Amino acid sequence: MVTKDIYLFEEGKKDMGMLLGNKGAQLCEMTRVGIPVPPGFVITTKVCNEYAKTGKLPKRVKDNVLKHVKKIERKTGKKFGDARNPLLFSVRSGAPISMPGMMDTILNLGLNDKTVLGLAKQTNNEWFAYDSYRRFLQMFGNIVLDISKESFEDAINKQKKKEGVHLDQEISLDGMKELVKKFKKIADVPQDPSKQLFMAIGAVFSSWNSDRAKSYREFNRLPNDLGTGVNVQTMVFGNLGNDSGTGVVFTRNPATGEKKLYGEFLLNAQGEDIVAGTRTPKPVNTLKKVLPKAYKKLVQTTKRLEKHYKDVQDIEFTIEKGKLYILQTRTAKRTASAAVKIAVDMVKEGVISKKMAIMRIDPSTIEKLLHRQISDEVSYNVIATGLPASPGAATGKLSFDADDAEKRADAGEKVILVRSETSPDDVHGIVRSQGVLTLRGGVTSHAAVVSRGLGIPCVSGCNELDIDYKNKLLIGKGIKLGEEDTLTIDGTTGRVIPGGVPLVDPKISKEFAQLLKWADSFKKLKVMANADTPKDAKKAVEFGAEGIGLCRTEHMFMSQNRLPIVQEMILSKSKEERERALARLLPEQRKDFTELFKIMKGRKITIRLLDPPLHEFLPDVDEIQEDIRSIKKSGNKKALAEKEELLKKTIHLHEVNPMLGHRGIRLGLVYPEIYNMQVRAIMEAACNVKKRGTRVSVVIELPLVAEERELATMKDEIDKTAMEVQKKKGVKIPYHIGTMIELPRACLIADKISKYVDFISFGTNDLTQTTFGFSRDDAEDKFLHYYFTNKILEEDPFVVLDEVGVGELMKMAVKRAHAQKPGIEMIICGEHGGEPKSVHFCHHINLDGVSCSPYRVPIARLAAAQAAIGRKK
Amino acid sequence: MVTKDIYLFEEGKKDMGMLLGNKGAQLCEMTRVGIPVPPGFVITTKVCNEYAKTGKLPKRVKDNVLKHVKKIERKTGKKFGDARNPLLFSVRSGAPISMPGMMDTILNLGLNDKTVLGLAKQTNNEWFAYDSYRRFLQMFGNIVLDISKESFEDAINKQKKKEGVHLDQEISLDGMKELVKKFKKIADVPQDPSKQLFMAIGAVFSSWNSDRAKSYREFNRLPNDLGTGVNVQTMVFGNLGNDSGTGVVFTRNPATGEKKLYGEFLLNAQGEDIVAGTRTPKPVNTLKKVLPKAYKKLVQTTKRLEKHYKDVQDIEFTIEKGKLYILQTRTAKRTASAAVKIAVDMVKEGVISKKMAIMRIDPSTIEKLLHRQISDEVSYNVIATGLPASPGAATGKLSFDADDAEKRADAGEKVILVRSETSPDDVHGIVRSQGVLTLRGGVTSHAAVVSRGLGIPCVSGCNELDIDYKNKLLIGKGIKLGEEDTLTIDGTTGRVIPGGVPLVDPKISKEFAQLLKWADSFKKLKVMANADTPKDAKKAVEFGAEGIGLCRTEHMFMSQNRLPIVQEMILSKSKEERERALARLLPEQRKDFTELFKIMKGRKITIRLLDPPLHEFLPDVDEIQEDIRSIKKSGNKKALAEKEELLKKTIHLHEVNPMLGHRGIRLGLVYPEIYNMQVRAIMEAACNVKKRGTRVSVVIELPLVAEERELATMKDEIDKTAMEVQKKKGVKIPYHIGTMIELPRACLIADKISKYVDFISFGTNDLTQTTFGFSRDDAEDKFLHYYFTNKILEEDPFVVLDEVGVGELMKMAVKRAHAQKPGIEMIICGEHGGEPKSVHFCHHINLDGVSCSPYRVPIARLAAAQAAIGRKK
Repeated sequence: MVTKDIYLFEEGKKDMGMLLGNKGAQLCEMTRVGIPVPPGFVITTKVCNEYAKTGKLPKRVKDNVLKHVKKIERKTGKKFGDARNPLLFSVRSGAPISMPGMMDTILNLGLNDKTVLGLAKQTNNEWFAYDSYRRFLQMFGNIVLDISKESFEDAINKQKKKEGVHLDQEISLDGMKELVKKFKKIADVPQDPSKQLFMAIGAVFSSWNSDRAKSYREFNRLPNDLGTGVNVQTMVFGNLGNDSGTGVVFTRNPATGEKKLYGEFLLNAQGEDIVAGTRTPKPVNTLKKVLPKAYKKLVQTTKRLEKHYKDVQDIEFTIEKGKLYILQTRTAKRTASAAVKIAVDMVKEGVISKKMAIMRIDPSTIEKLLHRQISDEVSYNVIATGLPASPGAATGKLSFDADDAEKRADAGEKVILVRSETSPDDVHGIVRSQGVLTLRGGVTSHAAVVSRGLGIPCVSGCNELDIDYKNKLLIGKGIKLGEEDTLTIDGTTGRVIPGGVPLVDPKISKEFAQLLKWADSFKKLKVMANADTPKDAKKAVEFGAEGIGLCRTEHMFMSQNRLPIVQEMILSKSKEERERALARLLPEQRKDFTELFKIMKGRKITIRLLDPPLHEFLPDVDEIQEDIRSIKKSGNKKALAEKEELLKKTIHLHEVNPMLGHRGIRLGLVYPEIYNMQVRAIMEAACNVKKRGTRVSVVIELPLVAEERELATMKDEIDKTAMEVQKKKGVKIPYHIGTMIELPRACLIADKISKYVDFISFGTNDLTQTTFGFSRDDAEDKFLHYYFTNKILEEDPFVVLDEVGVGELMKMAVKRAHAQKPGIEMIICGEHGGEPKSVHFCHHINLDGVSCSPYRVPIARLAAAQAAIGRKK
Repeated sequence: MVTKDIYLFEEGKKDMGMLLGNKGAQLCEMTRVGIPVPPGFVITTKVCNEYAKTGKLPKRVKDNVLKHVKKIERKTGKKFGDARNPLLFSVRSGAPISMPGMMDTILNLGLNDKTVLGLAKQTNNEWFAYDSYRRFLQMFGNIVLDISKESFEDAINKQKKKEGVHLDQEISLDGMKELVKKFKKIADVPQDPSKQLFMAIGAVFSSWNSDRAKSYREFNRLPNDLGTGVNVQTMVFGNLGNDSGTGVVFTRNPATGEKKLYGEFLLNAQGEDIVAGTRTPKPVNTLKKVLPKAYKKLVQTTKRLEKHYKDVQDIEFTIEKGKLYILQTRTAKRTASAAVKIAVDMVKEGVISKKMAIMRIDPSTIEKLLHRQISDEVSYNVIATGLPASPGAATGKLSFDADDAEKRADAGEKVILVRSETSPDDVHGIVRSQGVLTLRGGVTSHAAVVSRGLGIPCVSGCNELDIDYKNKLLIGKGIKLGEEDTLTIDGTTGRVIPGGVPLVDPKISKEFAQLLKWADSFKKLKVMANADTPKDAKKAVEFGAEGIGLCRTEHMFMSQNRLPIVQEMILSKSKEERERALARLLPEQRKDFTELFKIMKGRKITIRLLDPPLHEFLPDVDEIQEDIRSIKKSGNKKALAEKEELLKKTIHLHEVNPMLGHRGIRLGLVYPEIYNMQVRAIMEAACNVKKRGTRVSVVIELPLVAEERELATMKDEIDKTAMEVQKKKGVKIPYHIGTMIELPRACLIADKISKYVDFISFGTNDLTQTTFGFSRDDAEDKFLHYYFTNKILEEDPFVVLDEVGVGELMKMAVKRAHAQKPGIEMIICGEHGGEPKSVHFCHHINLDGVSCSPYRVPIARLAAAQAAIGRKK
């Protein structure tokens, strides 16, 4: 396409951002559709690139600029450099992608010793004219000639002191004239308006390659040859009397989404006066009384803008002597709840389609709608900031260990569990706490993962604080909090606040519910939840989960009344002894599953058999050793022998790398009686529930497979037990066997694995660990933080699925599994299943579904719909 | 191909094993080339399959059998079932693949109440005839009619008791006749010879589907429809007097390879008499005197057999009344050293080609030629057997900790280090020990890997023994050994022997050297060694390594005099402090590299920068805590503070999964000063050595890369330091930067990685860990053992490269790296680099080289040659 160097605002349009810069393109668009925009023109980004090479503005461009100035003169009836009716310009940069670090605006360009007189006459306000001149000299001097701001400020301060006044506005007319003189000495600003204009344009282009702009681009990986456009626009003044003014309006309320003009204005003022905050602006609807005509025009114009852009607009306007000018319009920033309301309302108004409404909501922003928050209306004292590990805010008294937390919670107290880090031993305490605060570990630490799963707020890795366990104190800078003190944590922001703070409960608005319903009608991915408890399962159903994609049974082994039996089972010396302990766990497990089946009412439940290594259920070696020391003193020989046995077994079960140790299906193979008990419990529960008339659909899932013969062996065992139970109960249960792919090798042999299962779930937490060789327990503080800071990794692969590595293995697995068994169901579970970018990826590689924390189900539903509609990432 | 049901021995040949069974095919082959084989015929495996379906011998086959019996009658002049000159048969099974669990041999078939008289007349030996008849009844009864052996044995014993004799041979003729009568009552053996023959043939076919045979096939994954052949062969008798006999000979000495007929014979005896051991056989050469004609024929015939089969033969023969018959020939089993000598000799004799010689040696058997062995000529008492973790035998006094081992070794004592397991802390003790014995850990445990690398014998995982560290005792069943006792271990077999045992030093024979030279001329893979010390490097060169493919620098950090500096470095509170400690390590590192460069004389050395997590260099938490307890008593406050600081740091550095933790290039990135010191030391050493006239070729290798930006960053650092040193020294060193691929993600991004390096080495130990999700420290005792026993895995993936998973990732990586940078050098290092099957795989996926322990270099050279020559796996 042959392009011109310069475009009049009438000549461009909104999709010419690459050529004209974004700001320029929008000014053109508004002009084109008849919005009252002060006339002007844009010099293209191509000229910027030309300038970058030569460091000069070519004569051709200069001539062209002057030609366009003439056009603006004709349009406005004013003349550039004219002593009676001078045309003044603002000059602004504007790149294709919004980019801080580039040139500020120069206003009032065209003023000189002669034109200032014309401006005084035009506006009938000599003070105003000299003030404008002084401002121009100051801006030009600073921005174009690179003279420090202080030089000008000093002069102003001296003048104020001399006159004994405090504000710039109080400086006398003579004082202003004096300042103009002084400024002209400080900055050698040319009197020739054309020269001013060329120099200003050159300064904009130079600013494109300023160090600040370049390092910004490097940091954000933006190309250097985008270039910036230059917008040259006629000045309009809101400070020419009480028939003038300036303001900012939103076409709808950006906090609530209410459909009502929202904003403020100042009479007889320029935009910078609003920013400066020296005068208090008035609500925009009061303009109706003051300048009814202009207000009417404003309402009309903003409505047109919203309709034209099909979205809420954030609009800057100026009224010059009763005439309305729009200086800028842009899509308004809004709160998450406003975004949802606006999108849904606009569909109902027929402005946008359902698809557009869905595409317009950033799924990552809606998470906070699902959690309790600190009220916006209070201020508070933050003593430390950790990582936002599980969203939502919570208030409670401090508890320093899980048993204590459980006990006090049982007694009706609200507690925040505070630990340097948590382990599976602490889960019973986490469950009963309002929130969790840890000093170590990242957003994928144990505390973070468990809390997110449970929907409990958590701040992790808050290393600014210390814990004195002995005296039960949380110690920060100049602050010590004990068990009786109250603490508030905000897991959405990572803030830690001493004392209680008013919290606001979340509500799913009717618009939000509507939006999600629409989303469901578009999405291809099934959205399920990870839920281990009845509480989770209910939440999951409430948030629209279509089933449970991952039910981890290990948490069932952790509860205080079962742990002793589990430990007995682990410490058994024979298979028989182990089976006796398991027999006591069986009814408990059956109860768990019965409840889940009842809640899910026929929705599919994927139950993963025991996964973690057995030593996770045993106490710490240190703890046992301490026990032994104290028992030794008491002299109880039997107790001593028992503890010593426990110590021996614990040491024996200890693993150097438990993540890669004896867990998952490896456990099931070596101790088939454990899985056997679980399968029996599942099938018995299923039969009982079905007998009482509730449908049941269940997948029995085998974790951590690396080799297909593991599955072949285990599948036979499961089928045998399942058949036996069904036969005994006289009920048929439509159960399936599934497996998790959590290891690179499992991805490579997905075809072989598919022979044995009907269901595969990618456990991308572990798959990420093995693919990268990153232990998530160790990586975060030790080196991942360094990696993010130094951009070795751009995103945390434990949060956003790594498409290059992990994702490629998944793609391979999907292809191979589908080739072997076209109908096989494949989903993702774990952290990534509720992360929007990862959900998109899952859609694109043809997964059947995602499963995530109940609290992320709405996010996943939305993201899945967006993926189906085809949003580019 | 249309096949017949039955083949005369003259009609088949050696490559018809699938149809005739292996034994049958060889009998045919010998007959075909004119070797004197007793006449006979083979019923095919196809008939076996037919039989398996119907359970019957078809009439067609029966008729055909009788037709072939007639042919044999014509050939021998004897008649089947004839009362005067009876033809007798042996009936044997013979499958295409040698398979225990099938039918034994039935001899003397054709005997009945009439023909026994004929046999007596033929042989002029009535006792012999009845003994043969009684044996036939016994075999037929037991094998065909399934009557227990005991029934017959009982009768024999009664008869012997009655006659007051001890041996079967002493039973009187009447006694024999009596036994025949009794046996006929026990077993209803048909008198009709044809019926006998059909039943025997049916029994062979039935035995193909016996439970024993089926489970053998299942276990060995052999197809069920291979079927077995049946060999029906004329009986010959070696026990017809002093002009008869039987024996076994090898065409060359199977222990030494010496070219001389080797074997033994018994006059007037059947084969079973040799097996029974009741008479002592004579050396075969004494036959020359006794039966010179038969001996001459034997020498001629065996020579022809060797020439025909082009390999040493193991031959069974019988002489019946002066006439030589060959009953069986097969390729002789031989010792590794004999195999090498025979292969090389045969090339020189023009019997086989160099390629054939190379292909004939199983690389896995030659390992023992490279290590010291227990003398074959002594007997000894084995108290326990562990895993054969590092080959070779060693004798020494027991030492229970590494410091002690080092001290005593320095004082000139020979010690065996005995530990329940070893850690990097023990390396200085391992290095100075004769051998290592551990109670825990498998063949890929720390002790095993380090010992193999160092060529020190090691027995690991010997869990039959216990250690009492307090009293310094090794405790086994009924035995206690202390520091002053001597122990012998055999790392080739896993045996543990109390006391000293004579050992035999290894020697590389001239034939072995010759074979390896030939191998080098065929192989495509470069064979390098993993060597960290001057001792290793010398060994590597001696064994023909073309360079060092992996020099691990961490061992250099472990030596007793450096560890305190390393610890100081780790405990540094600032970068400056750390740099000060590193500055003290620099000259030590420089010394290490200088020596290596000198030894390798321009051969390429790949130096891997520090890999393990830093906490591996710190003492155990338990140890520090104990120190703290004892210091507390002494009241030394400064020492206490220091220890407490150490404890804090150690706990801070502790990792949950160190294998996936802060190690490798992650360490280099977070603490660039460590790698900087190492690069400086390497380059300074290289410059110094080159200045003194020795060529230097070096690859600086970065471990554990997961993301290309890790390399991009580190490469810049290294180049900067390398340039600086070269400039200062005024020397140019042709160095390259390389990396290790040890993670699945690195395989997937091998193309991106290749942009930054000229050399890639697959660290398949770690790659196997991450691909499978198996921690090698934990997997072996906890579940891998179970996996092997239950055939979930057929081979240990830490020993034999897993082609399905790890191998596929490697293939992918090779393809991608080559696409990006065709000339890039790619090798494998680590355990698999010296394992023959894995070497083949490396050849086939187009690697450039392998690197392995110096002691495995000859194995790798041979395996690489075999891969190039194109041996099927």
